[in-house]
This record gives sequence, structure tokens and C-alpha cells, in this order.
Amino acid sequence: MPTRGFPAASVSAIASERSVGSQVAYNGDQLTIRRLSEDAFKGIDVAMFAAGADVSLLYAPVAAEAGALVIDKSSAWRMKANVPLVVPEVNGGDIHANEGIIASPNCTTIPLTMVLDALRKRTPIRRVVVSTYQAASGAGRALMDELESQTEAIAASKTPEVNATSHQLAYNVIPGGWKPDADGYNEEEMKLVAETRKILHDPTLHIAATCVRVPVPIGHSESVLIETGDKISASDARLILGEAPGMIVEDDPHAKLYPTPHGVAGKDEVYVGRIRDDISSSHGLMLWLVSDNLRKGAALNAVQIAEHALEMGVI
Amino acid sequence: MPTRGFPAASVSAIASERSVGSQVAYNGDQLTIRRLSEDAFKGIDVAMFAAGADVSLLYAPVAAEAGALVIDKSSAWRMKANVPLVVPEVNGGDIHANEGIIASPNCTTIPLTMVLDALRKRTPIRRVVVSTYQAASGAGRALMDELESQTEAIAASKTPEVNATSHQLAYNVIPGGWKPDADGYNEEEMKLVAETRKILHDPTLHIAATCVRVPVPIGHSESVLIETGDKISASDARLILGEAPGMIVEDDPHAKLYPTPHGVAGKDEVYVGRIRDDISSSHGLMLWLVSDNLRKGAALNAVQIAEHALEMGVI
Repeated sequence: MPTRGFPAASVSAIASERSVGSQVAYNGDQLTIRRLSEDAFKGIDVAMFAAGADVSLLYAPVAAEAGALVIDKSSAWRMKANVPLVVPEVNGGDIHANEGIIASPNCTTIPLTMVLDALRKRTPIRRVVVSTYQAASGAGRALMDELESQTEAIAASKTPEVNATSHQLAYNVIPGGWKPDADGYNEEEMKLVAETRKILHDPTLHIAATCVRVPVPIGHSESVLIETGDKISASDARLILGEAPGMIVEDDPHAKLYPTPHGVAGKDEVYVGRIRDDISSSHGLMLWLVSDNLRKGAALNAVQIAEHALEMGVI
Repeated sequence: MPTRGFPAASVSAIASERSVGSQVAYNGDQLTIRRLSEDAFKGIDVAMFAAGADVSLLYAPVAAEAGALVIDKSSAWRMKANVPLVVPEVNGGDIHANEGIIASPNCTTIPLTMVLDALRKRTPIRRVVVSTYQAASGAGRALMDELESQTEAIAASKTPEVNATSHQLAYNVIPGGWKPDADGYNEEEMKLVAETRKILHDPTLHIAATCVRVPVPIGHSESVLIETGDKISASDARLILGEAPGMIVEDDPHAKLYPTPHGVAGKDEVYVGRIRDDISSSHGLMLWLVSDNLRKGAALNAVQIAEHALEMGVI
């Protein structure tokens, strides 16, 4: 659905050999998929890459060379020094420094930086500790489909098949599945650390994460502890986050009102609830955030980067 | 199944009017349920209460008065000054101080205190921050059944009915559902705080929790940050926890080995994995624990209290 009305004179769909000739819907039209090649980007102003890191590594420079502004959803370019990593609400200004490629962050990073950026306008962020509850769709189509087939198996009293990841996901939670990194952390956890530091321009920010997959189709949740320079009370935080762009505070436990992935799937905003003083420290704040990992965590943020670049005259 | 061989000469099953006359299996026999009354506890040495707090408040003193040692699974007596709150591996000695009633802690408290107690033998615990991933069975039969019926509805492409709690649980996570308490926390989160302090005899322990319900039938998981007086390295923690009673370390991300509720359901031990240095502080440790909330989190711990009391000559 053309919900945002991005002012494109024409849109091309490009993919690998396997998909060439098939069609995708865009704005009421059907686009016939063209073949990815070195010549595919001639005349293109903005090239949105939503492929894997390998394809982006190879073809993003080709597209940039051909004159397109590349907005890349993969992890390939995020940590390169000459590639801005952008959440428009947070560091849209970084778009100016691009050399043809702009990266969009990982799905758990985007909502977290929006919360942290809003709060640090009041006082510096000293430390962040995050535990995630990440949806199957974050791992792609295979795990989405497997969650569905495992759910069907359970409903039929059959033993679910496990292929897409190491453990059954339906009726379970998995504290891993990402590539192990140094010191017991994994790639997903260290992406959250490195990307958050880069977006906030705070290269020494103290931040640690535990990433966990949950049997949810769409919507990543995060349980977050934030320690700040001056104390931010829960009621102040509620006001600050309620006024921040792209964020909705849904926080009334007495009315059983808190964000859940089922409720937030399909929404553009980052939802924040369970905002309260950390009772284990003098300068801590605890909260719960949920965002649609396919929208603000992925496609929407990339489109917003393009919109922002357009407003800034970069395109 | 009589897996533990508790040396009972006879066992009686007692319940409310509604269940009188029906049968429950015990040790190869069928016990016919008797009516709960003021006289029901005559000649009983150990009375295990697995009813709600209201029933325990009324009848635990009656049973104690009749000469039984009451072991109560409800929250009714846990925080009373003259009632020991016991995890046998941690504070079994507290059993001595009983005045007829011993309380068994909440399901998330038990495994956490086992981990904290093992670590504090090395150095004091300064602070604990927990995010939970709690199974439906922790809320009782109604939510268990609803998770199942919602799962069947999803598999049949129907809209799940929501009755047992405020939000759909299947394909979702719910950061609440417990009675709201002061300052934005809820009853479950404050139970974890108060009970952990009492069991560890550390009334000022800095501890905060976020409790979340996940669509899992059995098995509570916890993502835990522990700050200690002296630094405990991840490798030291792995050794300490691996040697602690009732605990199994399952921690090799390269082999995709980490505890999950699906894997731990039906097990008696507390499983710990993802043990690593907290990279956001100098004296922090992060880990993931899973335990069967119906076994070590509930029934097993109560039976272990009785076993311990027997060994100590209290019964």
C-alpha cells in the first residue's frame, strides 16, 4: 500500500536470476522484476537494498558509482567509517556525510536509539542493559514459516519439525541462534552495542544485551534498563518519550495497558510502556518497548531515510 | 510417579467440596479426595498446601495447630516474620525456626536465589536486575488451556479468544497481567524482590525485575544481570555454578547449547547458560537461567523442604 506517498517518478524492482520475470505489487501497479547486474542502476536516484550482506557488499558500490543514493538494510556497510548509519529521528543530519551509501540499522537498534536519544536531551546516558524478545520474522521467511508449521503440528498433537534454527521455536524461547561472537556474546548482541554507539555518536557508551527469540511472528520487544547522569523520574520519562517523534507511550498497568507485539504489529511507531524508576539503583530507569521489526525496524526506517535525504536536498 | 520415594506411611488428599470423592493418583494408588475441614489434619505429620492464598491463610494455622508441619506453596505466609521461606539448597537451616508453617517461594525466586547464593560464597552480591520469560502454567490451568486453544485457533486461521488474561498470549508476549503494585511495578516483580531478600537474609539487596509472560506451556526463563563486590569472571562463574547443588550449566553457544524451557520442562535441576562478563560495567556478570516452574519452581521445592525437615529431625 502506498501509505507514505514517496514521490518517485518510476520504481524498478531488481532481484537475482531466480526471481526475474515475476511480479511485485507497488502502489496499485505490478512491477516486473529485472535482473541484478552492473548496468541495473543506470538512471536510478535512490536504490533501496533489502538483500543479504553479500549482495550489498558487491552491488551497493556499483549502484553508488552509477549515481544512485544507496540505502542499505543489510549489515554489510553499517559499521564502515564513511557510511552514515541513520535513524532519521535521531541522527538524520548524518545523511550529509554520505559517499553514496547510507545504512539502516538492525531491527532492535532502531527503537532503542530513539528512546535513548529522547532521554539524553535531558541528561547523559551512562549505561544501558537490554534483554530482547525478538519475533521470528527477524530471522526471515524460513523461521516465520517454521513457527507456523510448528504451531500447526502442536495443534494437531504432532511433534514439530525443527529445521530453520537449532531449537523448536513454537512453545519455546531461544536465547541464541545468532553467530557466536567474542566473550560469550553473539553477533546480534554486538550489533546492538556497536550500532547504538555509532548512531548516538557515543563510542564508549556502556551497553550490554541479551538477545532472545520468542514465538511471535512480528514485533520485537525489549526490556531496558537505562542509567543516566542526573536522575530521570518515571513520570518525567513518560512526558519526554510521549513527546518524542515516532514514539507512543502506552503505560497504564491498572488498565492493563502495555505494548505487546501482537498489538504493535502493523504500526509505524515505537511503543513504550512499563516506565518506572529502577529500584536497584539511584539513577536508573526501566521500561519496555515494542516496535514492528518489519516496519520501523526495517522497511519504514529505510523509506524515512530516503524522505529525509530528499528534504535535505541530498537526492 | 513416585520419583523421590518420600517415606510416607500414608498419604491423604484433601480439597474443597467440589472435588470431594474424585480420585488422584499417588505412587501407583488412587487417593480418594476428602473434604477440607477443621478436623481434616488430625494425625497428619506434614501438610502440603497447594491451594490459593485464601485457603492457606484460613487452614494452614488449623493444620499447624493439629500438629502438622505445614509446607505452603501459596504467597499467603511467605513474608510473615515467623514463617521461614525456604529453598533447601540455599537456606535449609531456616527450617529450624518454623512455628508450624514453612513457605515455599514463588517460581521465579527459587532458581534465582540458587544462582545468587552460589555466587555470593565467593563475593557479595551488590545488585541484581532480572527480565523474565514466564510460562503460561505459572498462571494456572486456565491460561495453560487458553494458550492451547489459542494455538489451535491460529493453526485453523481463526481469531483466538481471549478470556484468561487481558491480551492474547499465543504468538505474543505480555509484559504484565499481575496485580499492579506501587511505583509501576507489579505483584510478581515485588514478590521476586522481597522473597529473594528474605531467603538470602539480605534485606537491603538491590534488585529490580521486569516480569513478562511468554507463550510457553512450562518452564520459566530469566535474563539476569548480577553485580558483585569483587569481579567474578564468566569462566569462574561457570565453575561455581556447575558445582552448585541442583544446578546444571549448559553453556556452549558454538555448539548451539543453551537452556530453553522446552528442553528443561520435566527436569528437576535449574539450568544456566549464556554466562558472560557484563560489558557495560566492571563488576557485572550476565546469565540466562531456566527452570521447570511446576517442579523446582513449585512442587519439587515443597517436597525438598519436607525431605530436609525430615533429615533435620524437625518432623
